[in-house]
Amino acid sequence: MPNVTFKFEDGTANVVAVTAGENLLEVARKANVAIDAPCSGNGSCGKCKVKYISGELDTKKTRHISEESFAEGWRLSCVSTVTGDVEVLVPDIASAYKSRMKVADLSSKEEIAIFDRAKKEVEESGIVFENDFSVTELKMEEPTLDDTMPDNERLIRAIQAAAGAEKVKLTYQALKKLPDVLRENRFHINAVLRKGGHGAVVYDVLPANDAKICGLAVDIGTTTVSAVILDMTTGELLAKASAGNGQIRYGADVINRIIESTKDGGKEKLQKAIIEETINPMLDGMCRSAGIRGDRIYHMCVASNTTMNHLFAGVNADPLRMEPYIPTFFETDNLSAYDLGIHVHPDAKIVIAPNIGSYVGGDITAGTLVSMIWNKPEFNLFIDLGTNGEIVFGNSDFMMSCACSAGPAFEGGDISCGMRATDGAIEACTIDAQTMEPTFKIVGDEGQKPVGLCGSGIIDVIAELFRCGIISPKGKFIKEGRRVLHDQYGIGSYVLAFQEDAAGHKDVVINEVDIDNFIRAKGAIFSAICTMIRSLDFDVSMIENVYVAGGIGSGINMKNAVTIGMFPDIELEKFHYIGNSSLTGAYNMVLSRQAEEKVYDLAHNMTYMELSTDPGYMDEFVAACFLPHTNTALFPSVVQEEV
Amino acid sequence: MPNVTFKFEDGTANVVAVTAGENLLEVARKANVAIDAPCSGNGSCGKCKVKYISGELDTKKTRHISEESFAEGWRLSCVSTVTGDVEVLVPDIASAYKSRMKVADLSSKEEIAIFDRAKKEVEESGIVFENDFSVTELKMEEPTLDDTMPDNERLIRAIQAAAGAEKVKLTYQALKKLPDVLRENRFHINAVLRKGGHGAVVYDVLPANDAKICGLAVDIGTTTVSAVILDMTTGELLAKASAGNGQIRYGADVINRIIESTKDGGKEKLQKAIIEETINPMLDGMCRSAGIRGDRIYHMCVASNTTMNHLFAGVNADPLRMEPYIPTFFETDNLSAYDLGIHVHPDAKIVIAPNIGSYVGGDITAGTLVSMIWNKPEFNLFIDLGTNGEIVFGNSDFMMSCACSAGPAFEGGDISCGMRATDGAIEACTIDAQTMEPTFKIVGDEGQKPVGLCGSGIIDVIAELFRCGIISPKGKFIKEGRRVLHDQYGIGSYVLAFQEDAAGHKDVVINEVDIDNFIRAKGAIFSAICTMIRSLDFDVSMIENVYVAGGIGSGINMKNAVTIGMFPDIELEKFHYIGNSSLTGAYNMVLSRQAEEKVYDLAHNMTYMELSTDPGYMDEFVAACFLPHTNTALFPSVVQEEV
Repeated sequence: MPNVTFKFEDGTANVVAVTAGENLLEVARKANVAIDAPCSGNGSCGKCKVKYISGELDTKKTRHISEESFAEGWRLSCVSTVTGDVEVLVPDIASAYKSRMKVADLSSKEEIAIFDRAKKEVEESGIVFENDFSVTELKMEEPTLDDTMPDNERLIRAIQAAAGAEKVKLTYQALKKLPDVLRENRFHINAVLRKGGHGAVVYDVLPANDAKICGLAVDIGTTTVSAVILDMTTGELLAKASAGNGQIRYGADVINRIIESTKDGGKEKLQKAIIEETINPMLDGMCRSAGIRGDRIYHMCVASNTTMNHLFAGVNADPLRMEPYIPTFFETDNLSAYDLGIHVHPDAKIVIAPNIGSYVGGDITAGTLVSMIWNKPEFNLFIDLGTNGEIVFGNSDFMMSCACSAGPAFEGGDISCGMRATDGAIEACTIDAQTMEPTFKIVGDEGQKPVGLCGSGIIDVIAELFRCGIISPKGKFIKEGRRVLHDQYGIGSYVLAFQEDAAGHKDVVINEVDIDNFIRAKGAIFSAICTMIRSLDFDVSMIENVYVAGGIGSGINMKNAVTIGMFPDIELEKFHYIGNSSLTGAYNMVLSRQAEEKVYDLAHNMTYMELSTDPGYMDEFVAACFLPHTNTALFPSVVQEEV
Repeated sequence: MPNVTFKFEDGTANVVAVTAGENLLEVARKANVAIDAPCSGNGSCGKCKVKYISGELDTKKTRHISEESFAEGWRLSCVSTVTGDVEVLVPDIASAYKSRMKVADLSSKEEIAIFDRAKKEVEESGIVFENDFSVTELKMEEPTLDDTMPDNERLIRAIQAAAGAEKVKLTYQALKKLPDVLRENRFHINAVLRKGGHGAVVYDVLPANDAKICGLAVDIGTTTVSAVILDMTTGELLAKASAGNGQIRYGADVINRIIESTKDGGKEKLQKAIIEETINPMLDGMCRSAGIRGDRIYHMCVASNTTMNHLFAGVNADPLRMEPYIPTFFETDNLSAYDLGIHVHPDAKIVIAPNIGSYVGGDITAGTLVSMIWNKPEFNLFIDLGTNGEIVFGNSDFMMSCACSAGPAFEGGDISCGMRATDGAIEACTIDAQTMEPTFKIVGDEGQKPVGLCGSGIIDVIAELFRCGIISPKGKFIKEGRRVLHDQYGIGSYVLAFQEDAAGHKDVVINEVDIDNFIRAKGAIFSAICTMIRSLDFDVSMIENVYVAGGIGSGINMKNAVTIGMFPDIELEKFHYIGNSSLTGAYNMVLSRQAEEKVYDLAHNMTYMELSTDPGYMDEFVAACFLPHTNTALFPSVVQEEV
């Protein structure tokens, strides 16, 4: 049996015995070697590059690898067949898919402000910030030969006396800890209670001087996963982290993931990728950073799209993909951490923000809560820019939602130098129309060199290239310059940073394929907005505010987003970036029982519009795949620079 | 590092690397090699024999190994130190501790009758045999593009319509199976429901032609574990098994087990020994025999003494052993199979029959149910003969209970040729007073040679030896004969079967040490009965019936039990053997919600008498350590044969 040796840039390696004839990408997947494959290995995206070092590998040549790159050893793993022992290098390139987990620095006020604001607005609507968890201090009599009541009865009676709960139950974890915690603390302890109805469940017993109870909010995006640990009493953020969704190697979009999940052991594989390989490592990192143990997290809320929460729950998602597109659940109220093996208290209930359609999920219902559009008389638009773009339009009387498939471009996916908004990402850019030289802002410390482009950076670059007349409304390069290059196939690109000025070993560029991908993404969003508003016989002029959410980053330049025709051409002050509303929504749901109920309420009252069956949507989409639009009258404010 | 090679009689071996100086018994325990050690390795019981083959082993000589046996290679592992590579044989002797699991033959009517009888008597008292589980057949409309309700809502509405439940929840297991089971059966399925209050929990979804729902009853004895799988609808027994309690290698009695559990990782080790090494293998064997999967068992009831159920639950049992002797729980209502890792449906609730004292546990409360003494006006005595002997006395107005430490003798422990009542056990015996020759009945097929003695056999042998004047009231040999031998220390023994007539490689004997152990066991029982009845100012003549339960076996000869002074000398027809009442009690609790409630009721109304603090108990015990008693006036019917 031949051996495949995967070498990594950090010097480590993974050697796998295979059968001759196996596909290299499949081998990598089986061995848990992360190679980007947004198209799930069908040869279309050109992302799954590895560098051939030595041995026997039979690779088809495709347009994705230039002659020069091929000579350097670059191969697409999805079109490579192992024919004998072979050694390849798996590049650790910064990309949208790089799943290195990042624990956020909570000393940054900016990070915290967005959660505070989301909570404050919801609170101002009258929603009370109380949850079912509390800590009750108990001082019990120590047992004697004349008072031999069992420990659990002693505890239950003390709780009944102190907290007024009629029926008290203990979780198994609390029962197991009870005799030791009682005796180590001379029967003076804190009990962590979850109250409900006339009863209470004892989740934990702690020394009397320890009263910290924590919750967890998780946003499972198709591309990016974000999470916060919070203090359930004060709402204080204790840790925050984000990471690439580990499922990415099974496909960039939900459809490819679902297909992968239907294969033998697929459900388990996809569930493992999100829980064991993504959420648990994030959790462990956050717990270290916050100095707490995972079993001190007693409650958890997940906001994610319908496919993501099905795959997270390990439930067959295939019916979502096939007519008549049926989810297993919109709402589920009986999942516990032990069911899914999440590194928190095993009895922690997992609240999944409710779905309202096969393609409008809990990320949107949770996000709608913090968008606050449900609490205002005027008509507002809420847009969540993710791999799926979801749009909600309405006011305190009605709300309508729809979803469109934007692809991963807003999070830097499907873009050759795309990446998430982490260190080295160009998040903002201007281009001088005369010199065609760029000026940009990079995420990270001072002196950080550019690695790639995140969503907000891509919008800026495309808007600026268009404004300066460097690209046409179709996104093709129409000017020459030292930064404008063309490859052997004639595909034009613009160099933002040459290799010597970049952090990596190559130029940071944007090419016509990237621009085309991004135009389709923005076109999907704009046409969805138009289709939905038109269906109500409304007009974009009636939109009072646009709340933009998503991982695209706070740096999003709304003027540029209008310039490329992503958002309707209305007054710029009507646009508001509200951050990751899926995560802040989940954060509110963890903290407040009423906020959780409100999200269910919103879900029950929101109408879902299926765009794919709307006869006008396709025409709207095709018309929107221009800069800014085929109908320039829709974008009166957009003008190109006269040079 | 030296290697210890444990060889087994079946030819297999286990090689373990150790540090020179390690104790051989400890090495065996760490390597999960089962060596009997009822005294937990303190050198007093002489049970942990292994046969030295070759290599370096430093063993202290003790009275337990004769010069001759030592020369043959026999060593006590607890006093042996590994000093270099060594090879030993671990004897697979039939013994009380042999943990080979036995799945019972349910074609035997006798096996089934005892459960039927126990159920019938409880049912005749008015207790209704209904439990919370049921199967509801559901025929749902298949979804269409115009009816896109999620699977779980579709199911919940169908259940609400069919079963009248208001609030319906799904277990995670049911949710996971739902989309596939629905589609594979065209939305025509059976739902397994647990009803309670106005709601129902869906435990499972099955094809419409499958309606089998199962329950599990387990009796965890200190020495022996027994279990049955039953059909929750019909009560039919589907499988039955028994095995030695895997904890036995950590001590024969509860005190040694508790001490072992307080060591580092001890709780986990003891819990693993009972669950992973005893109950789960029994379950797997029973499931194979019944042709069902473990996840079709939706409910479980455990009856066991207080220490056993603490160790089963993985809860610190040490406070039970130390003044003021406080259990962690008498009752617990929130344990699930997932908490303990039992191979049944993970959401199966584990009902533990309630304890009423540190030494009167759920085995007795469950057993009291089927003893029926709570339902009769006359005064009756219920005796459970186990490693702990427990006694309940009373009638429909009041009940009092107490416990005494009998040791494992009734189950064949602490007896050199003792064994459980499995194949090869002498279960009944008579001795000819003239010839001193024995005649016996052996468990097993015709032609089965004797292996050892089970509890009922030991009673018979001692009673017959005493009746024939072969042993004195103190249990010492006072007659000569070809079957009466004395060893180098002068310890007498009686040979029941010489090696050539026995199944094993040695004589089947009973010696003075065995008799002494058994006299102490029976003395503990008799003195407990006397102490409790005296404390009520009652007299044994007021006892209407004596219900004897325990693993001692249906072969117990009540006349002989009276002859040795184990039971009071009242009319023989008042004695009734009711089998393993702990298991039949648990069986009733699984089948009937009202039976479960009745056991709680009995527990709440039963008084517990602590014998160890009763000033008269010790004197009673000393007086009872004779055959039949120092006060022969208490046993007028007992006469010795005149030869």
